[in-house]
Amino acid sequence: MHVVVPAGGSGTRLWPLSRAANPKFLHPLTGTDRSLLQATFDRLVPLCSARNLLVVTGSAHAAGVARQLPALPERNILVEPFARDSCAAIALAAAVVQRRSPGAVMASFAADHLITDTAEFAHTVRRAVDGARDGYLMTIGITPTRPETGYGYLQCSEPATRSVIQRVLEFKEKPSLEVATRYLAAGKYLWNASMFVWRTDVFLAELAARRPDVAAPIAEIAEAWDTELQEETLARLWPQVPKVAVEYAVMEPAAEDGRVGTVPGDFGWSDIGDFSTVGDLLGVDVGEGSRAFTTGAGGSAVVVDGKGVVVVPAGNRLVSTLGVNDVIVVDTEDAVLVCDRSRAQDIKRLTEILRERGELDRL
Amino acid sequence: MHVVVPAGGSGTRLWPLSRAANPKFLHPLTGTDRSLLQATFDRLVPLCSARNLLVVTGSAHAAGVARQLPALPERNILVEPFARDSCAAIALAAAVVQRRSPGAVMASFAADHLITDTAEFAHTVRRAVDGARDGYLMTIGITPTRPETGYGYLQCSEPATRSVIQRVLEFKEKPSLEVATRYLAAGKYLWNASMFVWRTDVFLAELAARRPDVAAPIAEIAEAWDTELQEETLARLWPQVPKVAVEYAVMEPAAEDGRVGTVPGDFGWSDIGDFSTVGDLLGVDVGEGSRAFTTGAGGSAVVVDGKGVVVVPAGNRLVSTLGVNDVIVVDTEDAVLVCDRSRAQDIKRLTEILRERGELDRL
Repeated sequence: MHVVVPAGGSGTRLWPLSRAANPKFLHPLTGTDRSLLQATFDRLVPLCSARNLLVVTGSAHAAGVARQLPALPERNILVEPFARDSCAAIALAAAVVQRRSPGAVMASFAADHLITDTAEFAHTVRRAVDGARDGYLMTIGITPTRPETGYGYLQCSEPATRSVIQRVLEFKEKPSLEVATRYLAAGKYLWNASMFVWRTDVFLAELAARRPDVAAPIAEIAEAWDTELQEETLARLWPQVPKVAVEYAVMEPAAEDGRVGTVPGDFGWSDIGDFSTVGDLLGVDVGEGSRAFTTGAGGSAVVVDGKGVVVVPAGNRLVSTLGVNDVIVVDTEDAVLVCDRSRAQDIKRLTEILRERGELDRL
Repeated sequence: MHVVVPAGGSGTRLWPLSRAANPKFLHPLTGTDRSLLQATFDRLVPLCSARNLLVVTGSAHAAGVARQLPALPERNILVEPFARDSCAAIALAAAVVQRRSPGAVMASFAADHLITDTAEFAHTVRRAVDGARDGYLMTIGITPTRPETGYGYLQCSEPATRSVIQRVLEFKEKPSLEVATRYLAAGKYLWNASMFVWRTDVFLAELAARRPDVAAPIAEIAEAWDTELQEETLARLWPQVPKVAVEYAVMEPAAEDGRVGTVPGDFGWSDIGDFSTVGDLLGVDVGEGSRAFTTGAGGSAVVVDGKGVVVVPAGNRLVSTLGVNDVIVVDTEDAVLVCDRSRAQDIKRLTEILRERGELDRL
């Protein structure tokens, strides 16, 4: 088995901790001193060995990935010249795996998710591998625990039962709260965490059938991979690869044709999507339901008369609050954020405003 | 005429901007690049010349005062070995003035207050000097503009009229809101801003009569001042000087005996007492009634969807808020504060909590 870890995205909802130059997956948002990428590596290596683990990342983060994962062979760091969305990244990895190990089963997991029950995760992956061997494009869907509006959903053929393979009927976009509540009640919907397991030959055939505009340049690039032509071919063809999400390009149409299966997963998954989650999952209690998440940067937090405050002192400073409730305070070396907890998901919008105002060196 | 500027107090309600080692009066909280001390100096020098202006300060701040006021003669910086409250500071200055210029009129004004109408201030001082020449212990009371509970009040004999000298019947402690509202409606009460004008011989005679325990060591210290015995005498006697406020020791009992007069002042006075005031008086509008006060440290502020926010970026960082209202955010090199505006007066309490927690290097 081969495992691919797409390490992309800047995690703007975790700004100013997560930056374009130092994105979420490189940060120790795990409750230990390991970064999300390192924790992902630690979790996956027992499933496939480092020799069969590939990380796909952007040129800006290749050095960070290489330094954080010294046990990962250099040839297993696939560096995209620039981001072309998930279909390009996963297709490149699938084609390189297919070239190195034809017909292999390949799984793909994001670099910046947290999983607490590693044994259950491994068990679920093994069930998904069974489905992949049978020729399905498999996903691992997350059993939802709340009517979350921040994720897409997988509509299953039957009520979801832990570790039981079933058909995915449809990929659903991020829903409204009303729709999400209906999904949760129906019991037939899983969160789409972009976890995929398939045979590379099956995936590449699906890709070629549905998106030849992606498949053709990827095939030519893969042909040159591990040869002296690699860089030249990548430089010539990568700009032509369409930017499209793998769900949209391959998984949704394949689901319509009955070729997508899923295994419901229930292993303490979180995408550490915003600071509210960081506080809840990784923070320590500082009184009155307030939480402080201290990174290795040496900062400290003092919360006085504050309920539901989340403090992230990541800038070697003392951060104190007085008389404020339900507020997120993040301190870093060059930027401070104060945000109402109900607006934690809107930090992306704030970063857009900062971009418009020319604060590019703080993004 | 001689002028004394007691430059003491750490301004804890302006923490973390104001620190024990770098107190409020040394900060440019004036709307220009001049510090409060420098603005005070600029305002007073035309009244008395630098030769007749004395600054009384603590040993920790003597260097700061000397550097900020290069035009002030060195012998006019009176350095207290440690703070002994306002009676000791003012009595020392009065005794030194009396030694250098017997029978002079001396005025005393805090180093950390802001005054916008300098001409009116000078006019009011001249009226107070008239009263001082007649042998009264004069104060300049501030015509109140709101039922402030953070100041003491002067009860006058008649309704206060701008620049008209009258008797002070009583010094009132900081009142409750109910009492302060009554004071405001009565029209016979002024804010006590600790502005005094008197003949040094009159003041020292009052002090000797009422507090010989203060007057005696101060007289002996003054006798040695400007001689080779100054330091030795100060070291021996200063620890014996009782800690007491000049209002309590001298002014209140003198008022009971009809010896205190006042001139109501109305010259745009503020003690820049908390960050709410800093935002209102010195900040620039950043939208929706939010204000940013930028010091020379190069920080910047971005407020998104926030009403009544006060941001003080004093740490060369970008400070941004999203979706929070009526909050004070102060960023400095080593500490960040987030405080509800209604709690701006309680920051002193926060500093006490920090002291208990051993954060001494941040105070």
